[in-house]
Amino acid sequence: MINKEDIQNQIVQAVGTVRRTNPMAGSITNTVTINFVANAQLAVGGSAAMVYLPDEGEFLAKVGGATYINVGTLLPIYEETLPSTAKVLHDTGKPWVLDPVAVGIGKLRTHLLRQFREYKPSVIRGNASEIIALAGLWGLDGGTGESNVRGVDSTDSVSAAKAAAVALAKWTGGVVAVSGKTDLITDGFVIVLSHGGSHFMEKITGAGCSLGGVVAVYATATSPFIAAITATAVYNLAGKRAESKVDGPGSFQVQFLDELYNATAADIANNPFEIEEV
Amino acid sequence: MINKEDIQNQIVQAVGTVRRTNPMAGSITNTVTINFVANAQLAVGGSAAMVYLPDEGEFLAKVGGATYINVGTLLPIYEETLPSTAKVLHDTGKPWVLDPVAVGIGKLRTHLLRQFREYKPSVIRGNASEIIALAGLWGLDGGTGESNVRGVDSTDSVSAAKAAAVALAKWTGGVVAVSGKTDLITDGFVIVLSHGGSHFMEKITGAGCSLGGVVAVYATATSPFIAAITATAVYNLAGKRAESKVDGPGSFQVQFLDELYNATAADIANNPFEIEEV
Amino acid sequence: MINKEDIQNQIVQAVGTVRRTNPMAGSITNTVTINFVANAQLAVGGSAAMVYLPDEGEFLAKVGGATYINVGTLLPIYEETLPSTAKVLHDTGKPWVLDPVAVGIGKLRTHLLRQFREYKPSVIRGNASEIIALAGLWGLDGGTGESNVRGVDSTDSVSAAKAAAVALAKWTGGVVAVSGKTDLITDGFVIVLSHGGSHFMEKITGAGCSLGGVVAVYATATSPFIAAITATAVYNLAGKRAESKVDGPGSFQVQFLDELYNATAADIANNPFEIEEV
Repeated sequence: MINKEDIQNQIVQAVGTVRRTNPMAGSITNTVTINFVANAQLAVGGSAAMVYLPDEGEFLAKVGGATYINVGTLLPIYEETLPSTAKVLHDTGKPWVLDPVAVGIGKLRTHLLRQFREYKPSVIRGNASEIIALAGLWGLDGGTGESNVRGVDSTDSVSAAKAAAVALAKWTGGVVAVSGKTDLITDGFVIVLSHGGSHFMEKITGAGCSLGGVVAVYATATSPFIAAITATAVYNLAGKRAESKVDGPGSFQVQFLDELYNATAADIANNPFEIEEV
Repeated sequence: MINKEDIQNQIVQAVGTVRRTNPMAGSITNTVTINFVANAQLAVGGSAAMVYLPDEGEFLAKVGGATYINVGTLLPIYEETLPSTAKVLHDTGKPWVLDPVAVGIGKLRTHLLRQFREYKPSVIRGNASEIIALAGLWGLDGGTGESNVRGVDSTDSVSAAKAAAVALAKWTGGVVAVSGKTDLITDGFVIVLSHGGSHFMEKITGAGCSLGGVVAVYATATSPFIAAITATAVYNLAGKRAESKVDGPGSFQVQFLDELYNATAADIANNPFEIEEV
Repeated sequence: MINKEDIQNQIVQAVGTVRRTNPMAGSITNTVTINFVANAQLAVGGSAAMVYLPDEGEFLAKVGGATYINVGTLLPIYEETLPSTAKVLHDTGKPWVLDPVAVGIGKLRTHLLRQFREYKPSVIRGNASEIIALAGLWGLDGGTGESNVRGVDSTDSVSAAKAAAVALAKWTGGVVAVSGKTDLITDGFVIVLSHGGSHFMEKITGAGCSLGGVVAVYATATSPFIAAITATAVYNLAGKRAESKVDGPGSFQVQFLDELYNATAADIANNPFEIEEV
């Protein structure tokens, strides 16, 4: 089993590579948090580019080191853009991150998320309810046909999503990251539990979305598993540090971006986490 | 006539209920200020979800406690989404807030705002020029065929919109909130004048839109009239407090969200206001 | 040749006129940075309005003092909206600013940018790679068929774009502003080099887009050349001042808006620049 020091060394490598090479990770993402996603990607050292049209999605999929797809605020054109972009990513073996926001709301969302089953995202990031509902939609263990997704919020705990997360990771051969009080990241064999963060992360919009975008940035430079662990670690570190310096959600969001920018590779690697076998 | 103490007690109740229950108010709103709308809704204790597609709008209308519809940056699909969502809201008797941004610009906007006449929004929130123009479009007293809307800004004073506001409230059986130096809220019988705010609220984009979103959050927990009064009060309080601590519009926006988050129910209820008979 | 004092006097005039008259500059721009564009336009004293639909673009083109068109996140409807809006601007002789973001990505973008050749934007603002690629697309000197645009970032230096910038300005009879470490503004005859700014401007999204929006605000009040010089000067001044007060990109963006708001006309006119003949 991978040990703590291996992971920490790979985190240090990934953080350094991203800061040195300023890698581009394209996104197709919702309009609510699109600015915060881009600013978070830039703060950790990456480069951002967002599109809506099918041939532009395919273009970014090909030229970017990794891609972030978030189904938050679907537009009609996404019926073409998302499957064709996901197909390019799958066929070229490029890493990509899926954020199944609000799975269960609307016909197009369900249709698109069903299609993604075959395109096997390298990383699936969501809250507990989204992970459970996606596993259910894909007919996997730990999933349920009844969605507990309430708008964009979770009504389930992270531990309740463990079986679904493992099943999804085993199906895709990739990684699943479940966001919550303690974050869970699994490749289907090992589980990493990452600590930190802030209660303010639920009081701003886009903490989850921007984490997905930052996972894509790190996925240009390391394995999907290490990318998800690194992004989660820097989020937990920056969230904790920011909370101690601010008085509310407005200043938290500002300070959080500053902390993402200023966190050293060693600090990120040393953010508390544990490893468990599945 | 409702007295000051009644209103203050109901404000305290509404603020407390929202903070305790974290109610979801869905939105269909413009892309310029969508992030600020969501963050303001979260700062007061609500939960946000934004969509564009027809069946998703209908879904949020059904599951949310109240809905916010802002016609700011219309997309082609809104021709379907907005009437079908408004119809669900009307038919199910769910409270909803209409923000008739930039009424008078473009054929689709005029077409949609005409349709909303029959769907009777629970709260109409706009600046003085928008309220006058909407009353004109709906053929009501106080309205005018000539729009003084200039882009998204008002060229009329709040007091000039009083007759239009009362006529709209009488027509819908709901509430109208006119934003300006002193804000006016009426249910067609009583007028509440709310004081406070900041000159910086005109120097940031989205003060009005996010107020509409916050009215929807409170409308999940109290009557449309109290919801509009409560939201306006917390905006006037937070604006005044934020202005005293900042040096420009960038820091104002940040501090404003912090003040929304930190305002106590008693502070909000005690923000200065007066009651007048129509 | 225009001298330094002439330019400085005209900057002072333009800044004062905008603050006194609060002119409206409409925009059709990308969803990533649309909020920042609007807030920057408001911070310098202008008024913002954003739309997507064809008749709304034409309306803003007619009623606004100037218009900003940014091809960042294209939507399908832009195939109609952008040419029809640009045609109105061209036919009415209204100033407009083109931001050829990510030129080279996708068929629609290429198609639209080709059409703009005949509608002759008053100001073209972009990074070095975008300016070179646009000159190439339009078959002008200094351009190249091979785009070095990488997503939304530049891989060329400002000085490498000098010939392309001059050729574009001569073709349009307007102005080209190339953003980079030292910014270059040319009307095809004279080159102004503007100094200042901050390394943080590459670590936030929208520094370039919002500059384009602010150029449009000043273009309502002065010539396109002075508008581009004024906007660039206030950006370089505000960027430099903000950098000295902050610890990261989150607080930089906030402080930058405050500095835009607080910069005096004299400070902006005195921001360092040089004049060269082409």
